[in-house]
Amino acid sequence: MNLPLSVDRLWDSLMAMARIGATPEGGNNRPALSALDGEARALLARWGQEIGLTLSVDRLGNMALRREGRDPARKPVLVGSHLDTQPTGGKFDGPYGVLAGLEILHALHEAGTVTEAPIVLVNWTSEEGCRFSPSMIGAAGAMGVLSEAEVLDRRAIDDGERYGDALARTGWAGPADPAALRNAAAYFEAHIEQGPVLEAEGYDLGIVTGGFATERAMVSVRGKDSHAGTTPMEMRQDALLAAAEMMVAAERILLARAPEGRCTVNRLIVEPGADGVVPGGARFAMDYRHPLTGTLQALWAMAEEEWAAIATRRRVTVSRETYWAFPRVEFDAALAARLRAAAARHGAKHRDMLSGAGHDAYHAASRMPAVMLFIPCHGGISHHPTESISRDWAEIGLRVLAEAVIETANAAS
Amino acid sequence: MNLPLSVDRLWDSLMAMARIGATPEGGNNRPALSALDGEARALLARWGQEIGLTLSVDRLGNMALRREGRDPARKPVLVGSHLDTQPTGGKFDGPYGVLAGLEILHALHEAGTVTEAPIVLVNWTSEEGCRFSPSMIGAAGAMGVLSEAEVLDRRAIDDGERYGDALARTGWAGPADPAALRNAAAYFEAHIEQGPVLEAEGYDLGIVTGGFATERAMVSVRGKDSHAGTTPMEMRQDALLAAAEMMVAAERILLARAPEGRCTVNRLIVEPGADGVVPGGARFAMDYRHPLTGTLQALWAMAEEEWAAIATRRRVTVSRETYWAFPRVEFDAALAARLRAAAARHGAKHRDMLSGAGHDAYHAASRMPAVMLFIPCHGGISHHPTESISRDWAEIGLRVLAEAVIETANAAS
Repeated sequence: MNLPLSVDRLWDSLMAMARIGATPEGGNNRPALSALDGEARALLARWGQEIGLTLSVDRLGNMALRREGRDPARKPVLVGSHLDTQPTGGKFDGPYGVLAGLEILHALHEAGTVTEAPIVLVNWTSEEGCRFSPSMIGAAGAMGVLSEAEVLDRRAIDDGERYGDALARTGWAGPADPAALRNAAAYFEAHIEQGPVLEAEGYDLGIVTGGFATERAMVSVRGKDSHAGTTPMEMRQDALLAAAEMMVAAERILLARAPEGRCTVNRLIVEPGADGVVPGGARFAMDYRHPLTGTLQALWAMAEEEWAAIATRRRVTVSRETYWAFPRVEFDAALAARLRAAAARHGAKHRDMLSGAGHDAYHAASRMPAVMLFIPCHGGISHHPTESISRDWAEIGLRVLAEAVIETANAAS
Repeated sequence: MNLPLSVDRLWDSLMAMARIGATPEGGNNRPALSALDGEARALLARWGQEIGLTLSVDRLGNMALRREGRDPARKPVLVGSHLDTQPTGGKFDGPYGVLAGLEILHALHEAGTVTEAPIVLVNWTSEEGCRFSPSMIGAAGAMGVLSEAEVLDRRAIDDGERYGDALARTGWAGPADPAALRNAAAYFEAHIEQGPVLEAEGYDLGIVTGGFATERAMVSVRGKDSHAGTTPMEMRQDALLAAAEMMVAAERILLARAPEGRCTVNRLIVEPGADGVVPGGARFAMDYRHPLTGTLQALWAMAEEEWAAIATRRRVTVSRETYWAFPRVEFDAALAARLRAAAARHGAKHRDMLSGAGHDAYHAASRMPAVMLFIPCHGGISHHPTESISRDWAEIGLRVLAEAVIETANAAS
């Protein structure tokens, strides 16, 4: 394939996008459905128009920029990601996947090459989930994981604004049916790894064959407040030390049984949390993540069994409420093979891997063959102003993605 | 001794005092140097006047109500405690000691009995420390543990009001020299135990022979924030799980080496404490308490040694900053013997014990022979609206305290 892909143009578009919502620390604060998100969308729409793409916006705000195929009746190949960022986000989480897709279409436009199937560049609404929970809500609505009404009625975490109202306010409530995006031949998403593995092991690319199963729960430990000076140790019902022991046990279980998984305590609230008082309450938000859904469930079962014993010994109670979960996601083997072959042709050092984080591709995978391609990021740092990639990584990701996308769009239907 | 002590009058005075700052939950919210604290002081002053006591208020607000002795030149015997409460305080923590002292003077007044030495009832300012830190600040200033200027310039935790200004605002900045209270023959303080030991073991009284050494420190653990989904366990620098392991280790060291001591983690702050982020920071406020200062120091040394190993293994750093501490306090053996003998005469089941909490008596003990007498409280509950005592406990404490105080005031000087 001899496509005039330009890493300079890709880099310039990343830097131009990063000026919208740029922070003094060098990062980006461009929350979903903010005025800045609207600006970012308008810039993408303008770039798309300049290369002849047809924009359609659906009722959930998802943007689809279509380049027609030789056979308009064929199902399109989707490529994309998201333009919204975390409040302390960087320049690449999301935009890399969108703008690499745009560069592929730019090069096709410049070369005058027409693919068999149409190619559609997608910018999903509200991936980060920092204002509208859960994450990946636009993709979830389009793929039918959540109903359209559920998404539109979702309230912002900060001020309670309705998703549908925020969409209208920023001018991005479109007329298209979000379900139309389900009718596609494939979905490709390039993304920064957001972890340290590829760089640490010296890889250029990660072929993402699936995603970890994840379950996050609020664990509540109840004991009894008492005086920190006058209550002997054997008479205490200290919820915080019980919680600490439970957290350490949960981690130990993972490391002993399934060290390829993850155990994270994200938050912890102590009650009353006052000097001189043995805490009567402690709540912590913990997640287990593992490649296999069954193993994930076994980890929770083992943890709960040990927690019950700790609770009995310490005369406290413990309960768990799951508030965020998704099962193991399998990406498409044939699409992964195409990425792998393209990487090999380019001499890119690559490995198969699973994604530990959630991505729009997870929802796409429920409706069509989907796959992801990871490029490294320095130090594994993401959701942080110092998030960074090298131009070499940007380029190799672009070239491998382009080959696999175009090959898929030209494959016998 | 045949003194007309009235437990009914004591009980009525406790209930009358508890109407000032009564809360809907049945407790008391009467913070030091509030208008309600002023009302409580005025009520005590009126009761004192009614039985011929001479009030003097010192420049730190400490109230001294004096009943003259046969020999006015003799050093007085002090008896007292405090009238301020925690925001979620009960009816007895503090007032029991003050009003038991008042009842002794009331009975002496009624009987027309004159003791050899004067007896002075003391209400110390701001024992609880909930608005002006540290606890027992009025007693600390009077006994010279803090300078008068240091106390007057202390700022309120909530709104920054100066201690001296709050005193003037509530009308309780007196002319007397706080140091005058140092010139006394003895100090007695009756108090509720605020712990569960006496009731659980079936005792009527605790003869308090000293106080635990205490040291509270802020322990700071620093790791590195990372993505909870994409960061493998072996690449993490999770400050929260490190802190949890340190907390459990600190408790284990105490239980293995010195189980008669106390280990409490009062508060814990997680940074950033956000879903999806491996915490890069955790800070916890922990105290060790132990009867022996040397053992207390050894506990910290053992904990720090183990923490350093945990920190190295988990690739985090740990540091400790002490912000509240006092050494082991020894009460006076002769005064304790007097309380013990009086308890025996009354057939009260009593045991010697140490106080795990701080009390005004700790500072008094730095200047004069001092002792405390504990009565039980139900379930060990204190600093809570449901804090409660039985009238029997109130009575036996009153009778034993009265005999020891009067015996001391009549002893050869």
